[in-house]
Amino acid sequence: MAARSYFAGVDVGGTTVTTQLVTQLVDGQLQHVHETTVATDTSSPDATMESIAHGIDLTLREAQVDHGLAGIGLGVPGQVDAVNCVSVMAVNLFWYDYPVGARLRERFGAPIALDNDVRVAALGVYQFDNPANSQDLVYVSIGTGVAAGIILNGQLLRGRNNLAGEVGHYIVDPQGPPCNCGVRGCLETFVSATAVIRMARAAVSAGQATVLATCEPLNAKAVYDAAAAGDAVAQQIVVDVGTRLGIALRNIMMAYDVDSVVLGGGVTRAGDRYLDPILAEWARQRETSAFARAMLLPSKLRIADPSRNMGAWGAAALAARNHLF
Amino acid sequence: MAARSYFAGVDVGGTTVTTQLVTQLVDGQLQHVHETTVATDTSSPDATMESIAHGIDLTLREAQVDHGLAGIGLGVPGQVDAVNCVSVMAVNLFWYDYPVGARLRERFGAPIALDNDVRVAALGVYQFDNPANSQDLVYVSIGTGVAAGIILNGQLLRGRNNLAGEVGHYIVDPQGPPCNCGVRGCLETFVSATAVIRMARAAVSAGQATVLATCEPLNAKAVYDAAAAGDAVAQQIVVDVGTRLGIALRNIMMAYDVDSVVLGGGVTRAGDRYLDPILAEWARQRETSAFARAMLLPSKLRIADPSRNMGAWGAAALAARNHLF
Repeated sequence: MAARSYFAGVDVGGTTVTTQLVTQLVDGQLQHVHETTVATDTSSPDATMESIAHGIDLTLREAQVDHGLAGIGLGVPGQVDAVNCVSVMAVNLFWYDYPVGARLRERFGAPIALDNDVRVAALGVYQFDNPANSQDLVYVSIGTGVAAGIILNGQLLRGRNNLAGEVGHYIVDPQGPPCNCGVRGCLETFVSATAVIRMARAAVSAGQATVLATCEPLNAKAVYDAAAAGDAVAQQIVVDVGTRLGIALRNIMMAYDVDSVVLGGGVTRAGDRYLDPILAEWARQRETSAFARAMLLPSKLRIADPSRNMGAWGAAALAARNHLF
Repeated sequence: MAARSYFAGVDVGGTTVTTQLVTQLVDGQLQHVHETTVATDTSSPDATMESIAHGIDLTLREAQVDHGLAGIGLGVPGQVDAVNCVSVMAVNLFWYDYPVGARLRERFGAPIALDNDVRVAALGVYQFDNPANSQDLVYVSIGTGVAAGIILNGQLLRGRNNLAGEVGHYIVDPQGPPCNCGVRGCLETFVSATAVIRMARAAVSAGQATVLATCEPLNAKAVYDAAAAGDAVAQQIVVDVGTRLGIALRNIMMAYDVDSVVLGGGVTRAGDRYLDPILAEWARQRETSAFARAMLLPSKLRIADPSRNMGAWGAAALAARNHLF
């Protein structure tokens, strides 16, 4: 029997590094072997790299796999150069033009594949959390920022500057709040976890009667919990976010006309309470619009499986894909 | 010497039908042979079809081409079923589930290819009006409606419902004017030729001092002419449209990250006067935003060659493409 091929997929975050070890079956399918999560040491660019190498070593050791990897895939936040496996700018990792691919190749002697973390997570959803086998799929990550990974015809869309899918920077209100990107009123400033907290603080500062005034810490989860418990101010924030997202997802559908929109990120763990106001906006549009009736169907919208790190799974898929071609 | 292959490309409009006859050179390039334009008889669905057949016959006769066509391509307004060459809904042609492909195949014995008119025009721009040889290009048609044809990696993006690129129905202001599509505030309601006329009429009705009050007919061209002549009210409309378009084109760039955005449609014949307020919005964004500096460069934006009917050219390209594969 030939030796099995193993691939490591690494989701590199500012707080933790998760490594998913998979093996490729004879039919090409990838099977889970072992997963570990270690803390990210961001004290220097090389320290971050050391955390990644440590995570991979630990995973191989715990899984008792002692021969080489057939490939390593990575999902890295920020702007990447996927062709040269360079992290162009990852602010939270202090990486600027950091040669991730070259360093890992030296260390592990394996082919390296790298892409933006959201795009890699989209690939994970496409390959491992795709019950309808959609070939056209948008994965929207909603966290401190908002971005989408786009799969068209089973392939990742990257764009000329690796910026395709930066839907968090759709301007939705030119008079809106300032965005980190330098303009005003980007989608991100209305629906990110950061935006939810900003709106909650504003309501508290304005003296509105809400349990949010005594929440510690006042984070997005607290707002969704307060809304579920009946707090009217929190409910208004949740509805506002859902309505904005419902409209933004319509615009995303008009752009790509995919058959599946999958949401992920910490804030989406509120589950149906997160989806309901989005679906309410879609239902309002369907009442009067044939476009909405064709495209904005509840069956097309769901939340990614919260029990799995799709970034690490997708990174493993990225490594195996590059291996095949 | 083998007989040359001839293809006909037909741009089917509610007023005229333009037929572009091309021949394929040995290197695969398409060369113009002859073009005709005939009136569209929309008195019945079959009468419209008769206008198309007449246009093709006339073109072949005038070009003195007496052997069969290797293929016919068509660009048809509205919703199409490109796979089965059916016009699903073309309101201005009174076509509903009209079997365009089957009828023309009977008549001319040639393979038929059909797609939405804007998408076909995008293919025309890609193939015949693409000096930088962009492989990723968005063509935005601005007329009574607004829609885009999307080329990614040299291929047309259609979407699951043939609705990818319906950027005219991006909601840009949920409290905006009612759109024909059934919701409020679509891009189309702010920047289409129809919107320009509506804004001009509103200014006149409000008693604003403007030469538009005496314009007959009061169309979009009259508004751009009045703005060029110094009319302040017309200038404000032109600036508003350009600012809205500048923002919408940013959002289109965030979606696809293409290297070329090409505008077409009657209203764009105002040329630089049309582009200037769009470029002014892009310049404002570049001042503060790295995204804008990467993507919103004046060199990426232009107006399609107004001297050629890109719909007919693109339809010929569509016919030849299908022939090759």
